[in-house]
Amino acid sequence: MKKSIGPKTIIFPTPALVVATYDKNGKANAMTAAWGGICCSNPPCVAVSLLKSRYTYENIIEQKAFTINIASEAHVQSVDYFGIATGRTTDKFSSTGLTPVKSTIVNAPYIEEYPMILECRLLQTVEIGSHTQLIGEILDVKADQSVLTEDGMPDIEKVMPICFSPAKVGYFGLGKKLGKAFSIGKVL
Amino acid sequence: MKKSIGPKTIIFPTPALVVATYDKNGKANAMTAAWGGICCSNPPCVAVSLLKSRYTYENIIEQKAFTINIASEAHVQSVDYFGIATGRTTDKFSSTGLTPVKSTIVNAPYIEEYPMILECRLLQTVEIGSHTQLIGEILDVKADQSVLTEDGMPDIEKVMPICFSPAKVGYFGLGKKLGKAFSIGKVL
Repeated sequence: MKKSIGPKTIIFPTPALVVATYDKNGKANAMTAAWGGICCSNPPCVAVSLLKSRYTYENIIEQKAFTINIASEAHVQSVDYFGIATGRTTDKFSSTGLTPVKSTIVNAPYIEEYPMILECRLLQTVEIGSHTQLIGEILDVKADQSVLTEDGMPDIEKVMPICFSPAKVGYFGLGKKLGKAFSIGKVL
Repeated sequence: MKKSIGPKTIIFPTPALVVATYDKNGKANAMTAAWGGICCSNPPCVAVSLLKSRYTYENIIEQKAFTINIASEAHVQSVDYFGIATGRTTDKFSSTGLTPVKSTIVNAPYIEEYPMILECRLLQTVEIGSHTQLIGEILDVKADQSVLTEDGMPDIEKVMPICFSPAKVGYFGLGKKLGKAFSIGKVL
């Protein structure tokens, strides 16, 4: 017998996506968003939901571009900071000491120190309620050589990404491998 | 210097959401989707992206309802199976031995054995490309008493959810706690 918790926004796991943009003066900014993820295979797209009051929302609408930056465990403090501070009154890159690198394919910066990034152009906006969903087409994924497998793909066990928990409002690391997808269920 | 991987659908972590529905004859079905997550706080909403050819897509359009079922590590084999088999030709609940329970608030079943479930009514559909995004309003979250904290909220460390890796196509468990959100970044 399950207990009713009420209509809450809880899913496990939730990512901690760091969305990087330029403002209208070209200042680099980054914010952390947990409401997002891949939303289409072809074209490859990622969705991120933001409050319209967010500085990052304005920047994406203005520049029609953003990057999604995937942090490693070691970067958890900056990931949290990007979710607390606002770029309206602070230079978040200066505060963290992280390096914004201008993408050569979209007008947005990415974070040099994070191991994997997605460069996106704004494709569609969807009004839902408190949040507006910004759907970006992934034009390229870039990753550090050190987190790639031999076949050149990003390896989750080398990236060691951060999982966010909405209910316990905490960050968690990646655990042990449970099995191979499209494989371990075949016996059923 | 980051290496270009091309426009791939890779984000870490990605959830393994088991979407449960009834077909037009009332047969319960479940499928696993990695393209989805929370997309709005108010109203509380979850988005899941599906190919139109999916049996689950038809069911959601017909019933205007679905549940999102969050599995624990122990259920990883059924999660994978739900992503491999099709409900058109098989009864996936019989194959797995899992129990579909009819929701009292939407016309969809949920999985009794999974520790946490979200009951959703279809709010909006968004055409993106290969995938259609189905946005559901979360009408209730239900969880087993055994996975709740003392204040009655689902505890990610008791649920022990499954993380999916798109690039390595594998399932991973949850790792160690890295820190408290909206807290550890304050020093910056």
